[in-house]
Amino acid sequence: MSELRWNPLRQEWVIIATHRMNRVLHPPRDYCPLCPTLPGGFETEIPRPYFEVAVFENRYPSLHLVPPEPDVAGTELSPVAPAGGVCEVVVYTPEHEGSLATLSRDRVIQLIHVWQDRYLEISSREGIRYILIFENRGPEVGVTLSHPHGQIYAFPFIPPVPALELASARAHREKTGRCLFCDLLAEELADGRRIIMESAGWVAFVPFAARYSYEVHLYSRRCLAALTELHDGEVEELAAMLQEMVACYDGLFDAPFPYLMILHQAPVQGGDGEERGHLHFKFYSPVRDRNKLKFLAGCEQGAGTFINDAAPEKKAAELRASLEKVRRGQDSHDNR
Amino acid sequence: MSELRWNPLRQEWVIIATHRMNRVLHPPRDYCPLCPTLPGGFETEIPRPYFEVAVFENRYPSLHLVPPEPDVAGTELSPVAPAGGVCEVVVYTPEHEGSLATLSRDRVIQLIHVWQDRYLEISSREGIRYILIFENRGPEVGVTLSHPHGQIYAFPFIPPVPALELASARAHREKTGRCLFCDLLAEELADGRRIIMESAGWVAFVPFAARYSYEVHLYSRRCLAALTELHDGEVEELAAMLQEMVACYDGLFDAPFPYLMILHQAPVQGGDGEERGHLHFKFYSPVRDRNKLKFLAGCEQGAGTFINDAAPEKKAAELRASLEKVRRGQDSHDNR
Repeated sequence: MSELRWNPLRQEWVIIATHRMNRVLHPPRDYCPLCPTLPGGFETEIPRPYFEVAVFENRYPSLHLVPPEPDVAGTELSPVAPAGGVCEVVVYTPEHEGSLATLSRDRVIQLIHVWQDRYLEISSREGIRYILIFENRGPEVGVTLSHPHGQIYAFPFIPPVPALELASARAHREKTGRCLFCDLLAEELADGRRIIMESAGWVAFVPFAARYSYEVHLYSRRCLAALTELHDGEVEELAAMLQEMVACYDGLFDAPFPYLMILHQAPVQGGDGEERGHLHFKFYSPVRDRNKLKFLAGCEQGAGTFINDAAPEKKAAELRASLEKVRRGQDSHDNR
Repeated sequence: MSELRWNPLRQEWVIIATHRMNRVLHPPRDYCPLCPTLPGGFETEIPRPYFEVAVFENRYPSLHLVPPEPDVAGTELSPVAPAGGVCEVVVYTPEHEGSLATLSRDRVIQLIHVWQDRYLEISSREGIRYILIFENRGPEVGVTLSHPHGQIYAFPFIPPVPALELASARAHREKTGRCLFCDLLAEELADGRRIIMESAGWVAFVPFAARYSYEVHLYSRRCLAALTELHDGEVEELAAMLQEMVACYDGLFDAPFPYLMILHQAPVQGGDGEERGHLHFKFYSPVRDRNKLKFLAGCEQGAGTFINDAAPEKKAAELRASLEKVRRGQDSHDNR
């Protein structure tokens, strides 16, 4: 059973996907489904002995290329809809160990090209309205497979978070004629205290009103709709910054840092005048300090209001110090 | 440092409260700050040897009766505001062990009267717009003190979740002349498959578009704004249902079940014509099956769209079976 059910109070679709309850959790290393299939070995999801970056449909998809008929009848107030869409897995490397930070630079550039290709290809399909490329990393955020990988979800609707941000951007554009994301980026640059790193094309910062202690946003300086509009130089810079960002996180407490990395691009198949947004990544983490996790409890889930236990300015300074350490380590490695 | 910072993309206030990072986590039993203070013993938050239900200001408040001046200057786009409001702790019993389910019925009725009193008293204070009464239970939702207790947060704004639900209710009322909550309750009763239990004044059900596998909503049948409008009989029924609900949860896997219990009442100091909502409780839990937790990862946090791995109809049947077991146990206990 897989279907969309509408909640008219929260004005949101909920995905009901009952076949997912039995998916494989934390398999032993020799049975990793994201490794290559070696001759005579365990048959993984990728039926070949080598690959660079692999993309395939999620074995336990929440959204389906050919969705089943909904199992229940909806009402006018609470309609149901087929769970159409796309759920893909993107495996970053045939190596079982490692992270975005430990891949070669060329591999990360290749990964960005894969994201561009998938965004273009999926955009052309009927019924798709929003494509979310993301990575969940670490058991603290529920990741069941440690092999470096990300995911792509393509929705038949614009989900609540981008819908809200695009609505805010639209209201701001109507009032000022400008992009809200550009204006916020300009404020972050003018203030400077929350900037983690900058390049010609990109800026990483802890946002002024961060929900999470180590929340980081990575904005393209140019007001772009999607990864497909990047110059080659901006792709290379992005690869470097994504890798430095993960290394900087891991350097904070000298341990793999759990995070969600979310890529926001323009909605697809929008009408004329639809707000396109502004290409950016968001990193969220439940870590709020060494050995301390943030839980979403009564205030966050009941009210929808987040309590951040840390000053964004202080956490940005911690992240800059960690980045400095990473860069020094890299220098001494290069000089060896 | 404690202040509100506005995120113009998500149109939300975030509470930045840096003094909370050092609060006591999981103290040993002899140092529980929510137990009574015994003569010559550890001085707890409650300076007396006995109490029934105790209410006091949270020692690590996110919102303050007299808020400090904000630490940073905001901008027109990203303003800051003082973190005014109220954060109280409600201790249900002097007994360190137990739960809402194991209290005497009279104690739970008393607790509901305390909630009524606090809602009335806090409503009369200046600058308060929304009062959230809630309970976080279990280490799985980040609870650091196991002594049975809940909390009260009073906000100087209407937070995003009730604001969205009230806006939906208002639009529905303008279109139909009716209460959206009443209409949804009528649909749940007509369908019947997701009902857990009913009484003359209350109905508990897994909602049609539940985000969480074991999400339960408890609605008053009458369209009431707040607990203060309940008849004595409805208060007694509510006490019984809250206790049965927790016992039913605990009976699912014969273990203390982690949950968030959220009480939604009307905003306070609203203007004429402001939507009042409909008195109800929501129970959320990260448990999705025995030994399986739901994590909020890329799809939920990045897109805002929830994936529920279970059919609400099936989970409602499980909850009814657990309730049946609890009631049989109670009967055999009463007949001994």
